[in-house]
Amino acid sequence: MLTKLTGDFEVMWQQVWWLLFGLETNSKLNKQPPCSAPKTQVEFEYDGPSMKTEVPGPRSKELAKQLGEMQNVGAINFFCNYEESRGNYLVDVDGNRMLDVYTQISSIPIGYSHPSLMKVLSNPNNMSAFVNRPALGILPPENFPEKLAESLLSVSPSGMSRAQTMACGSCSNENAFKSMFIWYRNKERGHNNPSEEDIRSCMINQSPGCPNLSILSFMGGFHGRTMGCLATTHSKAIHKLDVPSFDWPIAPFPKLKYPLEEFTRENAQEEARCLEEVEDLIVQWRQKGRPVAGIIIEPIQAEGGDNHASPDFFRKLRNIAHKHGCAFHVDEVQTGCGATGKFWAHEHWGMEDPADIVSFSKKMLTGGFYHKDEFQPYRIFNTWMGDPSKNLLLAEVLNVIRRENLLEEVSRSGKALLQGLYQLQAQYPNLLSSARGVGTFCAVDIRDEATRNSILIKARDKGVLLGGCGDRSIRFRPALVFKEYHVHIFLNVFNDVLAEYN
Amino acid sequence: MLTKLTGDFEVMWQQVWWLLFGLETNSKLNKQPPCSAPKTQVEFEYDGPSMKTEVPGPRSKELAKQLGEMQNVGAINFFCNYEESRGNYLVDVDGNRMLDVYTQISSIPIGYSHPSLMKVLSNPNNMSAFVNRPALGILPPENFPEKLAESLLSVSPSGMSRAQTMACGSCSNENAFKSMFIWYRNKERGHNNPSEEDIRSCMINQSPGCPNLSILSFMGGFHGRTMGCLATTHSKAIHKLDVPSFDWPIAPFPKLKYPLEEFTRENAQEEARCLEEVEDLIVQWRQKGRPVAGIIIEPIQAEGGDNHASPDFFRKLRNIAHKHGCAFHVDEVQTGCGATGKFWAHEHWGMEDPADIVSFSKKMLTGGFYHKDEFQPYRIFNTWMGDPSKNLLLAEVLNVIRRENLLEEVSRSGKALLQGLYQLQAQYPNLLSSARGVGTFCAVDIRDEATRNSILIKARDKGVLLGGCGDRSIRFRPALVFKEYHVHIFLNVFNDVLAEYN
Repeated sequence: MLTKLTGDFEVMWQQVWWLLFGLETNSKLNKQPPCSAPKTQVEFEYDGPSMKTEVPGPRSKELAKQLGEMQNVGAINFFCNYEESRGNYLVDVDGNRMLDVYTQISSIPIGYSHPSLMKVLSNPNNMSAFVNRPALGILPPENFPEKLAESLLSVSPSGMSRAQTMACGSCSNENAFKSMFIWYRNKERGHNNPSEEDIRSCMINQSPGCPNLSILSFMGGFHGRTMGCLATTHSKAIHKLDVPSFDWPIAPFPKLKYPLEEFTRENAQEEARCLEEVEDLIVQWRQKGRPVAGIIIEPIQAEGGDNHASPDFFRKLRNIAHKHGCAFHVDEVQTGCGATGKFWAHEHWGMEDPADIVSFSKKMLTGGFYHKDEFQPYRIFNTWMGDPSKNLLLAEVLNVIRRENLLEEVSRSGKALLQGLYQLQAQYPNLLSSARGVGTFCAVDIRDEATRNSILIKARDKGVLLGGCGDRSIRFRPALVFKEYHVHIFLNVFNDVLAEYN
Repeated sequence: MLTKLTGDFEVMWQQVWWLLFGLETNSKLNKQPPCSAPKTQVEFEYDGPSMKTEVPGPRSKELAKQLGEMQNVGAINFFCNYEESRGNYLVDVDGNRMLDVYTQISSIPIGYSHPSLMKVLSNPNNMSAFVNRPALGILPPENFPEKLAESLLSVSPSGMSRAQTMACGSCSNENAFKSMFIWYRNKERGHNNPSEEDIRSCMINQSPGCPNLSILSFMGGFHGRTMGCLATTHSKAIHKLDVPSFDWPIAPFPKLKYPLEEFTRENAQEEARCLEEVEDLIVQWRQKGRPVAGIIIEPIQAEGGDNHASPDFFRKLRNIAHKHGCAFHVDEVQTGCGATGKFWAHEHWGMEDPADIVSFSKKMLTGGFYHKDEFQPYRIFNTWMGDPSKNLLLAEVLNVIRRENLLEEVSRSGKALLQGLYQLQAQYPNLLSSARGVGTFCAVDIRDEATRNSILIKARDKGVLLGGCGDRSIRFRPALVFKEYHVHIFLNVFNDVLAEYN
């Protein structure tokens, strides 16, 4: 695989790069690419990782010290040179170049410095969108309907033709919750106007105006860290400790055995157990006077450890929501935008009516949520309501996904990645287990947390950036431009790292 | 005043504009401005409002219909041509040009399409910041400490040298609340590690891990519309209705008589009454087992009706917070960034230690909060943690504010504005009352809500864009580049509108 990328590639790459984006003089910025310009990212990328110092290196440490004077730096890994980062390669401030299989916590859709996105920025017609940020809910720009149609609405989930943008994932889920509560109370009121008592009591946080409604969530789920979201997040104590919360029902998420196809009977039993518990909780909370207005779930629990469930589980859960009059909210903040080989992970369930609400953020560049017509969020409002400059970039990301057939590429790379993980798991049975994934949205368990953490660091030292999730899993979250040959670069490094533990 | 802007101004303006930003061919984009380029916005602006159609005009209506197919358009006023909008003038898609005294709900700091911001965008060195959005909390860009120092830290409130960025105002307040809760629990634990029970119980939303703590807020306050923020927002029922909330204490905000200097004795009594109630509530909630971890307040209640309180009130409130061990959170999302003639509205209190937390957003372009050293928010984290491209723009906004002495300009314009409102109030005593303000952050009450709403529309039809707040107030929220001559343009139009009601 690596032969593709050697030889005079680096020289050629540099020529193409400077022609397209030459930064040494301003005058080159607007030059058009030559007709023979390559269409995929191969030619724009580096040919592999290249490590010059330990990570964090001396420059990163110096900057961390500077930043430490101004804010908490407890979670900083290192500082990056984003100008030099390209495609799947993240370059740090000490000149280390890493294959990025974590992509800013799964939030870079088509790699760093993608030529098409750079063009969006260098197009003077787009400048105003970045400089004049509107209050979208009252004074949208002229091209907003067009850009919304081109971007979000062009990838609407089945059954949904409406979308509301928001600034981030947490705000998206918070506002989706509010939409579900309003929808539920409207049903309860028979769509009549709120009462005087509703109006009066809500101003002082009391029911019936602020009703005792709840959202049912799943143990191990992650839906954000603002206070409403946090009441449905149950992945790590560090997220929740010390923050007041709501008494809302929490159902068990199926703990399946992998590979799924080898444990169908046991897994089906486990899923049935969890679904039964969901129904019990809905009934219990209704009896407690805190009815469940909505159910929120991720198609794959990401932060919580890459926990999968079968399409059958989700179909049955959707039916339970219908049966009990609860809204069904699918949180695709991490799973959405192509990483599973379909644009939305819920498409793997094969349903025409998969959800009432689908929220997104991260690789979509803008936060927001799709919703069915009956969730009319007139009362969902804030100053910015998203950011039209992000819609511009998203529209171009979607163009690139289509033009470069990236969903097919993800399926192909994902197969190679999972296959490679299966092989390594067979080779290191005491170290690895439960390799799993859909598309490139893959994970593997490590024997314990300490070993997992040490593997993450050793892999980084060898030029591969990975992330953990759950107690002892490694999650793979490459960009959609992570090709089969990147898989092999990764597997080679990963194999070398694992060999050190045998 | 208007003579400044007539003559060959428009021709000259066009020449300068095209030289700086010429959009007709790409090659002009990077041309440097000539040495004689003007430094203030006067030369870049239009010479007054110009109305061509009713508002919304036919093109706006057509676009609203298109957008209506994709999202709720219940709050849309009209669609804008931001490319043509400059300085204090907002241009709509039907060619109407309005003097903007509302600025996207108070969120445009230095007017539309400011030359200095356009230059930030056209500088190719900045492109990467817009295209490669990092997970700031783990992998910040190289220039992040420098940009943070240049931007946020260069305008730190007294006693605060640390700042955390966030994507929007609601997220800023949500995370500030979490910081206060964590700080409070750390004190309670004697800074020891959390117990096993803390860890276990927090995962299922129960105390002691999710403690029964509260935030004290004020009736009429507005702090955002996500669920934690919403529990402290009490300005309009429409914000709160149908959303579950927390049982947190709500104190009365002083209802003062204006002009403040004429009613010092009555106002002081009213403030004393409210402060007494604050202390009572803190004691009550402690006894109820829901201690007050923090107090949140706006220096001027904005959405709630531009309600002012005296520096003495805030100084005493700050002392009450100290006395009872509550954190003191000043929400400057709307008041911050210069509109009161000082950079932060709380500077008018003349305190060295005004707050533990100061949150911001809107005109600051990025959300976030400053905090004292003891509020170490290691557990404050999300994927994006703000957006470095907004810091780039903010750094330039602050340069412009300094270079153009905009705080002085705001004080000067604010005086003219308030003086004008006093005169109009004397002229139309049955229509206007309680003119009030600091800097250009001014408001006036109208005799009733229906009249207020009709005045807003008539003013818009004459080319002046205003916003309402509270039940029957008009709030003035111009950009910081709103000069004395803009005040006079506004007052002339406002006078014409008011005359129609006599």
